[in-house]
Amino acid sequence: MEVWLIGIGMGRVEHLTLEAVAAINRADLILIPRKGEEKAELAQARRRICDEVLTNPQTVLAEFDLPVRDASDGYEGGVLDWHEAIAGCWERVIAVHPGALRVALLIWGDPALYDSSLRIAARLADRRAMTVHVVPGIMSLQGLTAAHAIPLNEIGAPFLVTTGRRLRDEGWPAGVDTLVVMLDGMNSFQTLDPAGVRIWWGAYVGMPDQIVEAGPLSEAGPRIVAARQAARDRNGWIMDIYLLRRDPGAGAPGRGSGAAARP
Amino acid sequence: MEVWLIGIGMGRVEHLTLEAVAAINRADLILIPRKGEEKAELAQARRRICDEVLTNPQTVLAEFDLPVRDASDGYEGGVLDWHEAIAGCWERVIAVHPGALRVALLIWGDPALYDSSLRIAARLADRRAMTVHVVPGIMSLQGLTAAHAIPLNEIGAPFLVTTGRRLRDEGWPAGVDTLVVMLDGMNSFQTLDPAGVRIWWGAYVGMPDQIVEAGPLSEAGPRIVAARQAARDRNGWIMDIYLLRRDPGAGAPGRGSGAAARP
Repeated sequence: MEVWLIGIGMGRVEHLTLEAVAAINRADLILIPRKGEEKAELAQARRRICDEVLTNPQTVLAEFDLPVRDASDGYEGGVLDWHEAIAGCWERVIAVHPGALRVALLIWGDPALYDSSLRIAARLADRRAMTVHVVPGIMSLQGLTAAHAIPLNEIGAPFLVTTGRRLRDEGWPAGVDTLVVMLDGMNSFQTLDPAGVRIWWGAYVGMPDQIVEAGPLSEAGPRIVAARQAARDRNGWIMDIYLLRRDPGAGAPGRGSGAAARP
Repeated sequence: MEVWLIGIGMGRVEHLTLEAVAAINRADLILIPRKGEEKAELAQARRRICDEVLTNPQTVLAEFDLPVRDASDGYEGGVLDWHEAIAGCWERVIAVHPGALRVALLIWGDPALYDSSLRIAARLADRRAMTVHVVPGIMSLQGLTAAHAIPLNEIGAPFLVTTGRRLRDEGWPAGVDTLVVMLDGMNSFQTLDPAGVRIWWGAYVGMPDQIVEAGPLSEAGPRIVAARQAARDRNGWIMDIYLLRRDPGAGAPGRGSGAAARP
């Protein structure tokens, strides 16, 4: 058996690569997870993609309900149990379609980035003969930089991709002037000293509802907090991401440390 | 005038998104830079992409020679002069096609990552009325993780994208256990203490000639050095990238520091 994890970008057919379209059409079985009301739009986007690009009449779509994550065992323990539970779901759906040799999942963004499918597939691969294949997809961080027409990196300089939780807990990391922050439900940029920091923010990037804001963090930050809340109220859910860039060589503007270290 | 920077992934038609195909076909003029013998294959890949997906008979392809970078003024000064020289090239080609309202460039990977086109376009935008538009493309780091079927990040953890030069000059950066290293012509992973570090390497990722190697850095490192040299000798050029991951919580295995700081 082959499991194909196919990146679908930000859920619009236009984000699919020709390789992704071909992989979707080579699949015998496509697993479509349902995630509860708030993310119903995501399952809807997967069905719409299949409607628009799937021309192989042999391909079967199988919807299934995702288990709920139990966070009572701490963050990582809960995540690993959840992966195991999802692996069990995949197995049960696959067992209903024993003739399916190529099983595909449509992965938001790229399967490599802040997604659990590769880890879940590895659990399955420990238990049965199968190979895992990945088709890259456009990531939301690319949708963000495209929406603002900005580079990810300064010339020859590094950038760090991190989470809202890390930014809150650890402040601005040492040695890097560009951060891409994902999975942030709490406007964690507010915990930074905004001196010398610019932000480029986007919600629903690459989608029809896309909203963007940019500017010095001190000015744009409050606008983003308001825009984010309004969008969430309006749509019932939000997916957002931002890039932070500080003046090169500035001191770490972590909580309270300010830019005093700047020469 | 509109300038469209269109990410083309790793040069195979399969890496194009449907959005990229549409943008190519909406262009009045596509600028195709030539870069000298060594990278003739890159110009060739751009022409092949146009051959395969361009169906608009109105679209004009215009090839031009890129200027040579002068590194005598230091790295950054040389780069900025070079950007100015390229902006001048774009202007001269555009001036020959005054009716072209949509001008496109096909950008290896994604225009946001280690590419100068956004900066060059910004120089043009300072001098004439024009807007800059970006179509994201699959990046080589995505080709790398797809080839190895590995995630970019550990669960909830950050990763840093950096250059071979930085890794050589500064060692393993603090506070991050996953590095993606690009633009490394010198096997800079050799400057690290390999204890507790794994490497996933790829050359020509996503292309027909793709080569991959992976394993503990101490074992895979020498294999990669040999494979890289052999591939370069064979093909006359090489484009490679790698991901390094160290045991979480390990001390900084920078040059000479070892893993002694590990608890």
